[in-house]
Amino acid sequence: MWLKKTNYKHMKKPFVTLLICCISASFTFSQTLAEKLGYAKDAKLLIIHGDDVGVAHSQTKATFEAMKNGLVTSTSMMVPPAWSAEVGEMAKEMPGADIGIHITLTNEWLNFNWGPEAGRTAVPGLANEKGHMYADCASVTANASPQEVEKEIRAQIHTAVQMGIKPTHLDSHMGCVFYGRPEYLVSYLKVAQELKIPAMINSQMIEGIIKPNAALFSGIHVDKFPVVDQLFMAQPTDFESGMVDFYENSIADIQPGLNVILIHLAYDDEEMNAVTKGHNTYHAPWRQADYDFFTSDKARELLEKNEIKLVTWREIGKVM
Amino acid sequence: MWLKKTNYKHMKKPFVTLLICCISASFTFSQTLAEKLGYAKDAKLLIIHGDDVGVAHSQTKATFEAMKNGLVTSTSMMVPPAWSAEVGEMAKEMPGADIGIHITLTNEWLNFNWGPEAGRTAVPGLANEKGHMYADCASVTANASPQEVEKEIRAQIHTAVQMGIKPTHLDSHMGCVFYGRPEYLVSYLKVAQELKIPAMINSQMIEGIIKPNAALFSGIHVDKFPVVDQLFMAQPTDFESGMVDFYENSIADIQPGLNVILIHLAYDDEEMNAVTKGHNTYHAPWRQADYDFFTSDKARELLEKNEIKLVTWREIGKVM
Repeated sequence: MWLKKTNYKHMKKPFVTLLICCISASFTFSQTLAEKLGYAKDAKLLIIHGDDVGVAHSQTKATFEAMKNGLVTSTSMMVPPAWSAEVGEMAKEMPGADIGIHITLTNEWLNFNWGPEAGRTAVPGLANEKGHMYADCASVTANASPQEVEKEIRAQIHTAVQMGIKPTHLDSHMGCVFYGRPEYLVSYLKVAQELKIPAMINSQMIEGIIKPNAALFSGIHVDKFPVVDQLFMAQPTDFESGMVDFYENSIADIQPGLNVILIHLAYDDEEMNAVTKGHNTYHAPWRQADYDFFTSDKARELLEKNEIKLVTWREIGKVM
Repeated sequence: MWLKKTNYKHMKKPFVTLLICCISASFTFSQTLAEKLGYAKDAKLLIIHGDDVGVAHSQTKATFEAMKNGLVTSTSMMVPPAWSAEVGEMAKEMPGADIGIHITLTNEWLNFNWGPEAGRTAVPGLANEKGHMYADCASVTANASPQEVEKEIRAQIHTAVQMGIKPTHLDSHMGCVFYGRPEYLVSYLKVAQELKIPAMINSQMIEGIIKPNAALFSGIHVDKFPVVDQLFMAQPTDFESGMVDFYENSIADIQPGLNVILIHLAYDDEEMNAVTKGHNTYHAPWRQADYDFFTSDKARELLEKNEIKLVTWREIGKVM
């Protein structure tokens, strides 16, 4: 899940090539990402990304089901929550699955908690007085040093690998890596660079964080990272007015380049209602609505009608 | 849950007074526990104790339901699992509830995990290479120092208090405090003594651990602790032959003195089946069977017919 206040819905202009050229003038794209993947130059590429796998049994089961029998192409796992080992087990039955690490610095739920993977005493700035992660990114930024965040990122990847996951990409739960100190983003990209995998970034991050802090990012080959051209994620008003409408409109809005729809899949069941208790967004019915749409024939037909090419981070990583 | 290999079912002889007198010759019982609680000298006292609250939403919900509307008198919470905060929330709606701390040193489930409450780097001997607690008591004994165990006991109580729980008693998940190093039992009793609350012990522990290690226990006023005369807990063969039979026989076997039936309540639902996956004991159907019996009219009638007095650790603590 991303920070709710940020609306990525209408980032339609492909700033990307221009911006990357500013950072690395010597680098030139000989081919578009679509061409590298074997598609026409102006193909509409789309990753349908189910966030938060591992946060609860309901979430993990629904996400794998939607990857097997629905339209979800990719997921990223939350390592600190209690259920993360189940991701490793389910992944064994789906060895080609596109599974990244959803770098998790927060714990936003009332009654279902976790602490930092590195341990509360190893990274005290990432734990509240109960040993749990903070509920929001602002508290992370106020309390966690860049060194602690990098240690935690590495601890999460280490545990995932122990669980049998070979991460295909990195992204950030609630966007805390993006909205905190710029050094958090440095660590995120540095670790992805070491692992030779994509880390999700978009042109806003390049423009708003990387360029103004160029010295901090001097060791990062930003130009080597694939950049998302359009991100779509439902906001509370979209849930209120109907998720089917929102996703139909999103699919219709997809342009040539790399598009990502971020969704959150779970069942509207007893467990997920208990996990998300007290929240009226990103809660169990919201996640069931995401599941319903992205396992529907209607969604499949819309993607075909709009000539959208479903891709994965794994495929993109191979042509990086 | 207690260590499965230990069968407490037929500990019928009241060794207790004799043994305690051996330890503290100067102490004399002027009244039996039953008399102190206002019952006849030879009353059959019974605590029906739902272990493991906090381990999962299903477990917590079923246990509180069985305390509200069934026959369960007491519970003890597992603090390290992700769901423990829900115990604090549910306890608010039941302020008189008898809730102890189920000192937890193990994590026996395949896909649902937790690490030590004190933090994996603070008590490394209580965490495996993934940062989770070990699956069995033997691994705890092999790896955890007495100092680490005491630190962990205190951390669990500290967190429970932060969650709004005022512990009424201590006991031990899977009995690891009892079957490990004698120093673990020293810490368990020492902390209970400081808190002025009962810690569940029986005559086997006095005879087998405390007496042979009397010097270690020199600071503990063992004679002040109420001692359980009979413990009943279903074993795998009891589940196979039918839980109703086992509990009917247990109730018929209850003798004058302090009796405890240890049970594990949850629903046989999706979440609990996922938590207990790969186990065929203490699993979801087992826990549903416990719930069914101890919310039944039949159980209520049997308790009345056998003139059994239901009591709580809270009441016992007040007359300690």
